Amino acid sequence: MNKGLLFRQLFDTAGSSTYTYLLADEGSGEAILIDPVLEMVDRDLGIVSELGLKLTMAINTHCHADHITGTGEIKKRVPGVKSAIAAASGAAADVKLSPGDKVVFGGRHVSVRATPGHTDGCVSYVMDDESMVFTGDALLIRGCGRTDFQQGSADHLYDNVHAQIFSLPDATLVYPAHDYKGRMSSTVGEEKRFNPRLTKSKAEFIEIMANLNLPYPKKIDASLPANLVCGI
Amino acid sequence: MNKGLLFRQLFDTAGSSTYTYLLADEGSGEAILIDPVLEMVDRDLGIVSELGLKLTMAINTHCHADHITGTGEIKKRVPGVKSAIAAASGAAADVKLSPGDKVVFGGRHVSVRATPGHTDGCVSYVMDDESMVFTGDALLIRGCGRTDFQQGSADHLYDNVHAQIFSLPDATLVYPAHDYKGRMSSTVGEEKRFNPRLTKSKAEFIEIMANLNLPYPKKIDASLPANLVCGI
Repeated sequence: MNKGLLFRQLFDTAGSSTYTYLLADEGSGEAILIDPVLEMVDRDLGIVSELGLKLTMAINTHCHADHITGTGEIKKRVPGVKSAIAAASGAAADVKLSPGDKVVFGGRHVSVRATPGHTDGCVSYVMDDESMVFTGDALLIRGCGRTDFQQGSADHLYDNVHAQIFSLPDATLVYPAHDYKGRMSSTVGEEKRFNPRLTKSKAEFIEIMANLNLPYPKKIDASLPANLVCGI
Repeated sequence: MNKGLLFRQLFDTAGSSTYTYLLADEGSGEAILIDPVLEMVDRDLGIVSELGLKLTMAINTHCHADHITGTGEIKKRVPGVKSAIAAASGAAADVKLSPGDKVVFGGRHVSVRATPGHTDGCVSYVMDDESMVFTGDALLIRGCGRTDFQQGSADHLYDNVHAQIFSLPDATLVYPAHDYKGRMSSTVGEEKRFNPRLTKSKAEFIEIMANLNLPYPKKIDASLPANLVCGI
């Protein structure tokens, strides 16, 4: 559909409902993975191999608390692959990303936008032609990530989603890090109109986020220490 | 990505791992659903409503044995929606489809191709520009539907997938009715190269299908009678 770009969305069937994204430049075969999950590395590398792609980077939208990243395992198995995450996340990685940086694969790239609030190191990745944005847990379909752990801030999340994501074209497809209702994508225009939290005033949003009464994240104690060092 | 076409893939989180597809003509807002699932009708109609679409048809790729179709429930809730399925399926529906028929929504359409073998009433729907094919259980990602129930025939499945699906352009995206490993799509070219069953000779394929030793389908006794009358 998008000329010259190979795109695959993949779902973690092992339990965390995480979406992993494979992006490749069809000309050169250079590819990146966004938010790979440890348990799904066999599947993901199998697809990369069958399609004859050269995986150059495995990047994360943030330091996840609900699953262990596949980044470290991928680096072990595929020589030369570099890991990347926001410098602001405090996690170890080969490349520490800052807002405005480009993650290049062949003739294509995604740009880094800072969207902290779920964690203080969250970024979103915007496709070079603004056809897609990978929002991590900053913006979910009709929702958003919780803000009560990992230096979360409802105040910051609200401002950053509005300034960095809702400023994209309405037609930009939103690809989040998770969905729990079997939805794969949304658009910026849809979330600006229908997101039940982020369409509210900032004061109402902060009130909603303060009263979610969510349980303690099941895997946070195992995931966070691992993800601070690429999941190894 | 595909100008003028709104496309959404949706997943059944209630247990059958079925993919439902929403296709709409952006100009007129006319929309169809392919393979809706009873338990997910609230979600699907919620999206149709928010996006301001006019749902005109709910169509099935075949008479499913693993879940109850949402078609009947959708007809109850949205006046004017018509159900459709292959005439060869023997199921009741407002529209009985034959090979070569077009299912039109606004300025767009999908064409019907006969791909029996999983059941004797299986069809695939090809997007008007051949950018996508909805293969039901005839062709799955690196697999295919079983052929040991519902007048299944490995012989027919092999011939029909080769003649009707593998004859499409290599770049045509394959959207199946199910995946159990978190994969959303493939391409015709990929399946022609990597499908572990359908790349074999016909004799080998028939042998493979005869020796799958799959369990009796859990929901077949409830699903089949219901799906023969639109799931009502």
